[in-house]
Amino acid sequence: MNRMTDFFKAAAQIVGDKGMTTDTDLIAPWLTDWRGVYTGKTLAMASPSSAEQLSALVKLCAQMNVPLVPQGGNSGMVGGATPDTSGTQLLLSMRKMNAIRRIVAEEQIAVCEAGVILQNLHEAAADAGMRFPLTLGGKGSATIGGLISTNAGGTQVLRHGTMRAQVLGLEAVLADGSIFNGLIPLKKDNRGFDLKQLFIGSEGTLGIVTAASLRLLPAIAERAVLWAGVSSIHAARQLLLHFQNHAGELLEGFEVIPAHCMDSLLSYLPDARAPLSGAHPWHCLIELVATNDHKINLNDSSVETLAAAADAGLLADAVIAANDTQAEAFWHLRDSIAAAERALGPAVQHDISVPVERMPDFVEMAADLIEKKFPGTKAVAFGHLGDGNVHFHVLAPARTDGDAWKATQAIEISGFVYDLVTQWSGSISAEHGIGQAKRNELTRLGDPVALDLIRRVKNALDPQGILNPGKLVPLAPPPRNP
Amino acid sequence: MNRMTDFFKAAAQIVGDKGMTTDTDLIAPWLTDWRGVYTGKTLAMASPSSAEQLSALVKLCAQMNVPLVPQGGNSGMVGGATPDTSGTQLLLSMRKMNAIRRIVAEEQIAVCEAGVILQNLHEAAADAGMRFPLTLGGKGSATIGGLISTNAGGTQVLRHGTMRAQVLGLEAVLADGSIFNGLIPLKKDNRGFDLKQLFIGSEGTLGIVTAASLRLLPAIAERAVLWAGVSSIHAARQLLLHFQNHAGELLEGFEVIPAHCMDSLLSYLPDARAPLSGAHPWHCLIELVATNDHKINLNDSSVETLAAAADAGLLADAVIAANDTQAEAFWHLRDSIAAAERALGPAVQHDISVPVERMPDFVEMAADLIEKKFPGTKAVAFGHLGDGNVHFHVLAPARTDGDAWKATQAIEISGFVYDLVTQWSGSISAEHGIGQAKRNELTRLGDPVALDLIRRVKNALDPQGILNPGKLVPLAPPPRNP
Repeated sequence: MNRMTDFFKAAAQIVGDKGMTTDTDLIAPWLTDWRGVYTGKTLAMASPSSAEQLSALVKLCAQMNVPLVPQGGNSGMVGGATPDTSGTQLLLSMRKMNAIRRIVAEEQIAVCEAGVILQNLHEAAADAGMRFPLTLGGKGSATIGGLISTNAGGTQVLRHGTMRAQVLGLEAVLADGSIFNGLIPLKKDNRGFDLKQLFIGSEGTLGIVTAASLRLLPAIAERAVLWAGVSSIHAARQLLLHFQNHAGELLEGFEVIPAHCMDSLLSYLPDARAPLSGAHPWHCLIELVATNDHKINLNDSSVETLAAAADAGLLADAVIAANDTQAEAFWHLRDSIAAAERALGPAVQHDISVPVERMPDFVEMAADLIEKKFPGTKAVAFGHLGDGNVHFHVLAPARTDGDAWKATQAIEISGFVYDLVTQWSGSISAEHGIGQAKRNELTRLGDPVALDLIRRVKNALDPQGILNPGKLVPLAPPPRNP
Repeated sequence: MNRMTDFFKAAAQIVGDKGMTTDTDLIAPWLTDWRGVYTGKTLAMASPSSAEQLSALVKLCAQMNVPLVPQGGNSGMVGGATPDTSGTQLLLSMRKMNAIRRIVAEEQIAVCEAGVILQNLHEAAADAGMRFPLTLGGKGSATIGGLISTNAGGTQVLRHGTMRAQVLGLEAVLADGSIFNGLIPLKKDNRGFDLKQLFIGSEGTLGIVTAASLRLLPAIAERAVLWAGVSSIHAARQLLLHFQNHAGELLEGFEVIPAHCMDSLLSYLPDARAPLSGAHPWHCLIELVATNDHKINLNDSSVETLAAAADAGLLADAVIAANDTQAEAFWHLRDSIAAAERALGPAVQHDISVPVERMPDFVEMAADLIEKKFPGTKAVAFGHLGDGNVHFHVLAPARTDGDAWKATQAIEISGFVYDLVTQWSGSISAEHGIGQAKRNELTRLGDPVALDLIRRVKNALDPQGILNPGKLVPLAPPPRNP
């Protein structure tokens, strides 16, 4: 393989000897995705330490036709950062580019390189009396570049939006190695297309994000975490609307949890206590957040809002966390649902969304249809009611062989769930992206006009197809029905 | 012209006889742009009444190679909706598609066709107890389709963002006549690229917006309009930061006005009174807005914030509008600046932006440089300090022949202003777009990587070049320096 030796030498000259490795021990942890579903091979792992190095490297790859697979913290959920099994793709680690270039509280801005880990940004922002208003479970490993490339969500989207809303500017290396420099944020700029949007959520298929200017907000001064029991998911939505009317911009999160999950949680977490003494068909976890400029007593205001809701018959019982420990305990329940449900036996998960106002109907309809169509299964929906984002788990019938079930009925169930969500004008991927995991389903169910646009933009920006090939973009038109 | 007769007949079959006209009296008002700078010719004016009609019409145009020039209220500032002088382009009026399809206060959403006039949306939203948080001078004629296609701004961008932030979903007809249906909004959707972003701010060059789902907010419960005198534009910025710290999300507008403009205003408006009795180098117009959920007394809070600012030495004098009439009078001053300055004699205007924190330095530097380089001119900057958006007027030397000056020195001055703003990492078009007016300057000053991306995306989505040709997209690479 003379050609590959040449490539390796030239690449090492660009990124330095330490920036280029074929050491299998070093590379192995990065070849399997976080969920353990995909394992790939690579010809080497490159770790550039600047956009200029990456630019030269991509030029070399374009010249020698070597595809690149960009990777941040390797905590994605859809195999979007795992190379294929051919061994011909170059794994591109962005983790060395991990400088927080500047944080200016007065300008409410942080400028980060792509490899900065989310938790590190949180800590740096806190040191400056600010906060970065996006967080999620993988914050200890997820990088800014990965979060941008997947347009990550999390639990604060209701108030602050997804990653797209946090990106004020960005820098990216394109398929021909040129550097798009859109890092300096302008609040108003109408010089044609807003090009940075192309790189947010495109999973490294249109360019490789190397740095970003991100929005900061003033630090939290006060928070109130509430737990309410309600009679149905429709009642939960009425309570959400009540809070939107009374608490407006202060409402930071509104999660719903069915009784089934509460039962699973209490058996799964031995030390956990139910926030409310009685049994309720549905539970709501509500968080309000105020900064110094809000000038209100959040606790008094929460008591008032809950009292008004109770008067209007919108809830059966409710409690406000007495302190931070209790608040964390409430959120710990919410964050443990996935694990608690998994402990019950084999299950298949879906990260889907529907228009916000249709979520209660969808959850009732879909659970009912699935349990009838697949006897013995149990469908459980929970999640971000305020975003229309449902975590939809389907548990296998009792005493099922998990592996066999996952290879057969689980796949059929997923197809059925994605059919339903498409019929309801929803999304088969609310948060996690497409990657390799959902590319076939996107091809099958996507609007042909939208798929054609995706392909056209991809071909225009990466005609050679060297940027993360095999991910997101459905390359062939969907097969016609026979 | 058999070919054109065939085209006209086929088009009339699609949009109906009333939807197709060559009547010069009917067409004439739409062939000259709002500023009176550009006058074009057209082979006919088509007025479809549905996306399906437009889809068929664009297919016909693609087949017969007839370019289309979409137009809403014809109130754009850069000739973006005016056909060229060849007479071969079809003027496409979107004004017939003027239905507000639905407004649902509970869902905080309005679904509008492209031809809905902004003021009509404001009124319909108010009837539903809501507001649409974007407004501008041309609200009586500007249409939703035009506002989206130009990513319009206005006076509330500081708090609510530009049009891009208001668009939850949209529908557009593409260059091949297919309909992109992205109208149903999902708060979370990561099925690949966010395609709707392509059509926002692209001035009809990538597709023709036919309808949109727009974000509504609760109606205003209380507003406070303040006027403050400060010693410099740097002091104005310190006052802005003070208000951002103390009033946070309630801060809806922060405009700055130099003494020169105050003088022009008071001579131009015979009945106008200066809000403050003394003379001040700079004036700030500040608006705070609260909805019912804010639960604060905005007047008390404003008094407190102003008092704290005075204690900190951030302002010389200030007043709060005593009632709505006075508040409107304050805003009337601001909105009359352009006219008052024009009354002083020939001038050239620039709609530019720089990074927010650099605006004070830029204004001082640029005014000084220009007055030195072009003796006898007077440079006046005012506008949206909170957005870094400067309205930068340069007045001709006294006793200048306006027409001759505009054809010579004014052009040189504009080139110089655009050079400066580019050196300061700013934008040569903050709000108005590129259209025909700034295409050459974008070609000259744009980042070659960004220009190449614009061309690639344009060619990918409209390979035939039938969508608003001659606007926005710099088709040829910029000429090399000799």
